[in-house]
Amino acid sequence: MKFYDCATAPSPRRVRIFIAEKELDIPTVQVDLRAGEHLKDEFRAINPHATVPVLELDDGTTLLDSNSISIYLEEAFPEPNLMGRDATEKAVIAGWNRFAEWEGLAAAAECLRNSAKGMKGRAITGPVSYEQIPDLAERGRQRAHHFINELNARLTDSAFLAGDRFTVADITAVVAVDFMKWIKVEAPEDAYGLKRWCSDVCLRPGVVN
Amino acid sequence: MKFYDCATAPSPRRVRIFIAEKELDIPTVQVDLRAGEHLKDEFRAINPHATVPVLELDDGTTLLDSNSISIYLEEAFPEPNLMGRDATEKAVIAGWNRFAEWEGLAAAAECLRNSAKGMKGRAITGPVSYEQIPDLAERGRQRAHHFINELNARLTDSAFLAGDRFTVADITAVVAVDFMKWIKVEAPEDAYGLKRWCSDVCLRPGVVN
Repeated sequence: MKFYDCATAPSPRRVRIFIAEKELDIPTVQVDLRAGEHLKDEFRAINPHATVPVLELDDGTTLLDSNSISIYLEEAFPEPNLMGRDATEKAVIAGWNRFAEWEGLAAAAECLRNSAKGMKGRAITGPVSYEQIPDLAERGRQRAHHFINELNARLTDSAFLAGDRFTVADITAVVAVDFMKWIKVEAPEDAYGLKRWCSDVCLRPGVVN
Repeated sequence: MKFYDCATAPSPRRVRIFIAEKELDIPTVQVDLRAGEHLKDEFRAINPHATVPVLELDDGTTLLDSNSISIYLEEAFPEPNLMGRDATEKAVIAGWNRFAEWEGLAAAAECLRNSAKGMKGRAITGPVSYEQIPDLAERGRQRAHHFINELNARLTDSAFLAGDRFTVADITAVVAVDFMKWIKVEAPEDAYGLKRWCSDVCLRPGVVN
């Protein structure tokens, strides 16, 4: 296997944490997004969508997003379990993982990509250039605040996002929470549920690094 | 089990087709989105996100999005297989399903929700009111056209979206293609790959209805 990563980007960080939790050692290639390496022909021959992460399997199959990669690694290396053991648990974890991805990560990306000077013409990942929409940056920021509140409410009632143990949903959520610092959206002082969860999850070896 | 559906909406249609392909008979409740039934307290007690589809399991667990519901039904009723049999196939199908969802369904929703008169203040699903952003409607339309082209290119090389057999990725893609008719984005005359695939997939009993 070969893992195409970018050490500064949130989406491949989800895979980095997943790999660390599984205690796997996968050869890793850094793709320099700031230098536009992902838009060059050499990388687009690997991933036409021009995004990281990518996991290249030994048979040449390429997996082009962090969810697909997680599904593969969970099946191929079942322990420790991160995505559920039976039908109900698998579905519940997938639901919370989706919440963290759509309401958290996607909201922060919407804000950052539609406002950062360095991302003009790069409002959406991928090979097509889309111009920034300032109103969308503002909406992303509102959604990010809403996500933080929803996450805190959930973590006031539940030890981890999907229940009583650490799962892939917590990985996506912690990446989303950290990514939101880039747009200066942080948990309020009294977000006790979220802070209690962070103080545990953020010390895990794969999350620290 | 109980399935909360809305016969006119695309997301629950994904579940309807999935259920039909599995030949399951699940008691179904229609939620009238046009009348705002999803925003009322009674439904929000079932799903705080105020969206359909919802699958309520016999133990009271509620699954709140079509992906989680598919994961549950695939585990609980494995045949016919719609989501892959081994690690690689599961991951590849998930990747194409995600492509159809993010690049297809989400693009069409972005266009429709940010332009339709009946959706003022409803630019995003869920309980929070977000105003329409006209530039985003236009961007969604561009993305929808791009999706149709990408889908056609893939289906020129491949019998089905994720390979040589019908899977959940085809379900999401056919729902996206049909949803795009609402925003008047249709496959061009020479989209032969897409049309060949449609002429097969669209005749499946669960897709016709």
